[in-house]
Amino acid sequence: MATMKNLEDALVDELRDILHAEKQLTKALAKMARKASSEELRAAFEEHREVTLEQTERLEKAFEILGKSPRAKRCEGMFGILEEGKEHLEEDADPSVLDAVMIADAQKAEHYEIASYGTVIAWAEQLGQSEIVRLLKQTLKEEKETDVKLTELAESLANQEAAV
Amino acid sequence: MATMKNLEDALVDELRDILHAEKQLTKALAKMARKASSEELRAAFEEHREVTLEQTERLEKAFEILGKSPRAKRCEGMFGILEEGKEHLEEDADPSVLDAVMIADAQKAEHYEIASYGTVIAWAEQLGQSEIVRLLKQTLKEEKETDVKLTELAESLANQEAAV
Repeated sequence: MATMKNLEDALVDELRDILHAEKQLTKALAKMARKASSEELRAAFEEHREVTLEQTERLEKAFEILGKSPRAKRCEGMFGILEEGKEHLEEDADPSVLDAVMIADAQKAEHYEIASYGTVIAWAEQLGQSEIVRLLKQTLKEEKETDVKLTELAESLANQEAAV
Repeated sequence: MATMKNLEDALVDELRDILHAEKQLTKALAKMARKASSEELRAAFEEHREVTLEQTERLEKAFEILGKSPRAKRCEGMFGILEEGKEHLEEDADPSVLDAVMIADAQKAEHYEIASYGTVIAWAEQLGQSEIVRLLKQTLKEEKETDVKLTELAESLANQEAAV
């Protein structure tokens, strides 16, 4: 049982959660890239994997600023999202349908992170931790951009499919 | 193992996932309302619970349009998100910190739904299912409004706390 006596405890707890989420997502993106049948989608997953590694480094800096160890805490939310994604990879699916489903799964992961970074930024602001706010706002901007890119890619792949 | 030979299979699968997500969330919101120490937050969770029931009815209509049974499929993503939420309710937390943490948990649930409804709307559009698109766009709008309201409520509670 954790103790959350004040907002800093909650901030550290949530940073540990999102650190684990990023680590899980990094591994999942590598698998998803291998399963993608569209070359564009494979490249998008690989690129996002690189970005995720940088985002993990920013989280480690946030722990350093707070004087806390960058210890990850099992993130059940991301685990569940990626579990669904894993199940989809096992299904007997048409390749273009699987691409569409993997994009949907990745967008759920992005939205988990958008909610989580939104929270830690708000809490860091309340605690006057401006350097953490600056660092994580960059990550939040990237997560939102990734979500938009995935929507555009889904539309583009659907149009290519319709044209076949 | 499910079969996803075409986009309609994927749409039905995702509708079953989100139906289960809404059902789980309805129960969780009742618990969260009971644990809220702020009266405003309690009211917000209860109001959102009512909205969630209407959203479930819209999903049932979507199944009817597709001629499929409204059978829910265990949604691992929402399960994981709410599992984290349950753990938070067990923690030894200051009441105002717990309120902030419950808002964050609810926003993760909202973002899961925003991603999922975004996906089913895009797929229904591609399949020419305009009535489903119309129904679920209303839900997506509500989910986004709830997310904004929760952010505003978190800010307002933080300001009240700072003024004590």
